[in-house]
Amino acid sequence: MTQADITTIPQPARRFARPVPIRFAHCDPAGIIFFPQYLMLFNGLVEDWFNEGLGVSYAGMLGDQRTGLPIVHLECDFRAVTRMGETVEFGLTVTRMGSRSLTLDMDCHGAGGADGVLRVSARKVLVFTSLDTHEAIAAPAHIRAAIERWMNDE
Amino acid sequence: MTQADITTIPQPARRFARPVPIRFAHCDPAGIIFFPQYLMLFNGLVEDWFNEGLGVSYAGMLGDQRTGLPIVHLECDFRAVTRMGETVEFGLTVTRMGSRSLTLDMDCHGAGGADGVLRVSARKVLVFTSLDTHEAIAAPAHIRAAIERWMNDE
Amino acid sequence: MTQADITTIPQPARRFARPVPIRFAHCDPAGIIFFPQYLMLFNGLVEDWFNEGLGVSYAGMLGDQRTGLPIVHLECDFRAVTRMGETVEFGLTVTRMGSRSLTLDMDCHGAGGADGVLRVSARKVLVFTSLDTHEAIAAPAHIRAAIERWMNDE
Amino acid sequence: MTQADITTIPQPARRFARPVPIRFAHCDPAGIIFFPQYLMLFNGLVEDWFNEGLGVSYAGMLGDQRTGLPIVHLECDFRAVTRMGETVEFGLTVTRMGSRSLTLDMDCHGAGGADGVLRVSARKVLVFTSLDTHEAIAAPAHIRAAIERWMNDE
Repeated sequence: MTQADITTIPQPARRFARPVPIRFAHCDPAGIIFFPQYLMLFNGLVEDWFNEGLGVSYAGMLGDQRTGLPIVHLECDFRAVTRMGETVEFGLTVTRMGSRSLTLDMDCHGAGGADGVLRVSARKVLVFTSLDTHEAIAAPAHIRAAIERWMNDE
Repeated sequence: MTQADITTIPQPARRFARPVPIRFAHCDPAGIIFFPQYLMLFNGLVEDWFNEGLGVSYAGMLGDQRTGLPIVHLECDFRAVTRMGETVEFGLTVTRMGSRSLTLDMDCHGAGGADGVLRVSARKVLVFTSLDTHEAIAAPAHIRAAIERWMNDE
Repeated sequence: MTQADITTIPQPARRFARPVPIRFAHCDPAGIIFFPQYLMLFNGLVEDWFNEGLGVSYAGMLGDQRTGLPIVHLECDFRAVTRMGETVEFGLTVTRMGSRSLTLDMDCHGAGGADGVLRVSARKVLVFTSLDTHEAIAAPAHIRAAIERWMNDE
Repeated sequence: MTQADITTIPQPARRFARPVPIRFAHCDPAGIIFFPQYLMLFNGLVEDWFNEGLGVSYAGMLGDQRTGLPIVHLECDFRAVTRMGETVEFGLTVTRMGSRSLTLDMDCHGAGGADGVLRVSARKVLVFTSLDTHEAIAAPAHIRAAIERWMNDE
């Protein structure tokens, strides 16, 4: 991979965020979110960012174009508990856009009546793949262009 | 149980509905909703109805008042498939308000750009319980009053 | 459908059963199984029955043969709670084998040190479908033969 | 925290492993495990290790002793895909036993007829907490003793 393959990230990075109600179904016998549910919800935020932020259909990418975007590396810090009935805010910024991979920094904060305390921060490295072979492929040009446009807007 | 314990349901019954985006996380290797996810999503609709329709905090009912609302009977008909990326409409009506139980009719329809075809219809019988004993209890008076008020509005 | 399309079910019907540990991940803030998890676990029992009882690979049916087995009708009665840490027994019997559908009666009982009390009983009607069209198809002959053989063994 | 608070880990570290069938319910529209399910399954392995390896009831720790063991830090590398119908092997070793925290290295390998290729490796840092306050507490003495005994056996 050459330097030219890597998109320069504007600073400060743009953030995409959505409020998320924490439901009974997300919570465990301790009455707080069961942690794999954060990862389900972060995945939902990436879908919303594609559909609403980038204007790229996430379902179309998978279904029609047979392009997957699986995770290859994940790091998470769980800093404060989130309880059933809270509405929290999930956010993401693009940290790196490579030729075949996309690195996202993700966060969950108290919001919507709750405090603004950071609950979880995560870094996800995603790779574009063919759903036929599960091998890495170059990021589709229209998706890469949409991400660059989104980062540089506003 | 006497006749007086059962609330009369106005006809036509009022319906509470919300749009729901169908996510990657809801879908299975067949590319359609994995059916237990419908039941997770119906549960979320009951929460929204409590919080937004009835003005009763669902989390408060469980957490502070230690009152549960588990299911005792369920019937579902799955009539048409729902695919990843669709936004569908989930709805509920109250079919019976007993002294200790609540019967809800629930539905999922195409919506938000999709057709209006019925995908799933379900009937759920829920029972108010003590979370300390898991035994049935009388419906809390403030919840029963809120349900009766909601049914008779508009 | 003619009468000949329907397989005669031997009486008493043969039962396929497996012990299942109830995990933290299955349980909700009330400390008991969140009910959609029963349906996830019943689905797992059908997989085990295919793989171990019938000698038919469930994954192969879906992946190689592109044959689905979605649910079209479900009825459940939830009779007693199941708590985190219990090992319970899940069982199934064949109630009806039609030309395109399969009706299974399913149960969850206390077991493995717990009592033998019935926790949940359910009836599922499944239909064989093409995963390309999601339309109903005739039950594949080798699967129907395997089910008939299994029912009549022992 | 003093040096004395940290248990010395024998080398090579003992490994606890269990086979896990990968079910339809774990898999996504790409036909492979949806990654949060790995974290659900790793959680299940920790439960099995407590119950079967350490001889400490995981459900009893939570339910009777009101001691939680939430995650505070997670790192995962996803190296190869796992498909529906495979039986893979999940394993764990203890990397660090602190006064209030426990660090586990976890892995998923092909097994049971599949290859032995590493699919996922993860490091989890868990902290003992009071379920009443969700604050960190000292590792209960009987659990710490059971972990030290298990590490030094065989």
